[in-house]
Amino acid sequence: MSKITAAITGVEAYLPEYILTNEELSRMVDTSDEWIMTRIGIKERRIQKGEGLGTSDMAVEAVKKLFKKLSISPEEIDLVICATVTPDMQFPATANVICDKLGILNAFSFDIGAACSGFIYTLVTASQYIESGRYKKILVIGADKMSSIVDYTDRNTCPIFGDGAGVVLLEPTTDGTGIIDYICRVDGSGRKHLHQKAGGSVKPASHETVDAKEHFIYQEGQAVFKFAVSKMADVSVELMEKNHLRSEDIAWLVPHQANLRIIDATGKRMGLPPEKVMINIEKYGNTTSGTIPICLWDYEKRLKKGDNLIIAAFGGGFTWGSIYVKWSYDS
Amino acid sequence: MSKITAAITGVEAYLPEYILTNEELSRMVDTSDEWIMTRIGIKERRIQKGEGLGTSDMAVEAVKKLFKKLSISPEEIDLVICATVTPDMQFPATANVICDKLGILNAFSFDIGAACSGFIYTLVTASQYIESGRYKKILVIGADKMSSIVDYTDRNTCPIFGDGAGVVLLEPTTDGTGIIDYICRVDGSGRKHLHQKAGGSVKPASHETVDAKEHFIYQEGQAVFKFAVSKMADVSVELMEKNHLRSEDIAWLVPHQANLRIIDATGKRMGLPPEKVMINIEKYGNTTSGTIPICLWDYEKRLKKGDNLIIAAFGGGFTWGSIYVKWSYDS
Repeated sequence: MSKITAAITGVEAYLPEYILTNEELSRMVDTSDEWIMTRIGIKERRIQKGEGLGTSDMAVEAVKKLFKKLSISPEEIDLVICATVTPDMQFPATANVICDKLGILNAFSFDIGAACSGFIYTLVTASQYIESGRYKKILVIGADKMSSIVDYTDRNTCPIFGDGAGVVLLEPTTDGTGIIDYICRVDGSGRKHLHQKAGGSVKPASHETVDAKEHFIYQEGQAVFKFAVSKMADVSVELMEKNHLRSEDIAWLVPHQANLRIIDATGKRMGLPPEKVMINIEKYGNTTSGTIPICLWDYEKRLKKGDNLIIAAFGGGFTWGSIYVKWSYDS
Repeated sequence: MSKITAAITGVEAYLPEYILTNEELSRMVDTSDEWIMTRIGIKERRIQKGEGLGTSDMAVEAVKKLFKKLSISPEEIDLVICATVTPDMQFPATANVICDKLGILNAFSFDIGAACSGFIYTLVTASQYIESGRYKKILVIGADKMSSIVDYTDRNTCPIFGDGAGVVLLEPTTDGTGIIDYICRVDGSGRKHLHQKAGGSVKPASHETVDAKEHFIYQEGQAVFKFAVSKMADVSVELMEKNHLRSEDIAWLVPHQANLRIIDATGKRMGLPPEKVMINIEKYGNTTSGTIPICLWDYEKRLKKGDNLIIAAFGGGFTWGSIYVKWSYDS
């Protein structure tokens, strides 16, 4: 029997209705459409509005759409893994909440924390479960309500992030498509440049941490940019070489959407023309765990069975990684 | 070639020095040694003291001891997965921090969130990576600084929890030992009985959430007890039946240490005499993700190669699960 690989057999996404434009942002902080477009490449981002809503509620909408599109029922799902840095609560896992809200009763579920590389790490982890031969249908979710940890008085970070959720269905295949290879890397010394200071065991929430705005994203943009721009390209080129892939063999680069200049640099290092690089950062900003499945969903109609995709991300940790996927279906 | 399984080839733990006794607790809240011993079975628990310390610092001590004991160096580690509900920070992952503090440079790393079943889910996940044949040495860590989310004015929860960390090394084997089978389950509808209300995307930290003590563990003890006592036993008996294991085939039950009565009930349902049940709750309380590796470490000298172990846990989510391990070495 041929080796079982994990095939992506469907993708969906959910973006909240509310659109936060650069114009609205420039009335909130000292910024402008031109400043944001030049430096980051974002026109607008979506924000989840409504009392008591969290990351799980966006994920639930994305999964509902996936179930409808693929005509599958919640009972068929074996495992649900959710990548998020903004779980509904610290515990239980947001994946548990999603299962409950959707009536997914025959699965087990957990969250994976790996910041902006969360979706990559989660997809790789889910693929290990598929390759064991024991699982038939796994939901791999990337969802973040970044607006819950963004300081909307900080002009350096508030334009970057948006809310959103994406999901892919993973199923076993022996047709040679699916997740072929990957490289994941970590350098924890980078954590000083990108983290959330309070709310964990080192510094639990207190009046002082709230006053000091320590529950928001702390990011030293320049340091993160410098690492991201080299590491995301390095790992993608390394993965191509390892798999004897030339630029012309790659149909698509699916990059984490953190900054247009990081994306451009990665595409160039891989020798790809701009039309082979998935970009939707201008519409949604950086949705952290959501960017990659949201990109796949946005470009799904243009993907063909057998297409070679390189998925790449870089983020807090620092964590980074790249996955080589041979696409499994025509839309 | 025989099938690759994931063998536990070493175990270590770290417990902070400070001992919080029932006597000291009874001066803090309206409780007594007799009340705590009768209902939960805990004499004392360890507390991590010291400014700026978090969950990673305990994990680092445990891993250092493991490296020394097994004469392995940080460079040999391929993957580090940390189960925790009290990460140092929401991001980056505590596993990333642990790697940095230990000089683990050739691994990637992430956290898994699944409350008190976290170590079980993490061990199962790590075993999938081992079985792929791609990884030689994986650190599976369970660590929690529960004192960072315990309300020491709440007599119902503050006696239960303690701080601690444990780690096992997972390596591939083809000798028939290792992680043989498992069952994991989730029922997200149970989340209302056991959760942390604030600090996530549904309810970010604010002065109101701090005042309302919503960053502490919320637990409806009776409801959790009722579920735990049946589910942890159900899943363990189911796993025994699935693997044709009779009571006399089992050398040890390794139960999550949440409550002595839950542990006793599970052992009885499995038909095990008390001397086959690992118990150290009286010394350390419920260290959440830490209980199982800390138990294995406490009993390591009594384990023999080929011993059949059933590891079982139940926790927030609700999540629960059971793992059948054939022990891989004599101490």
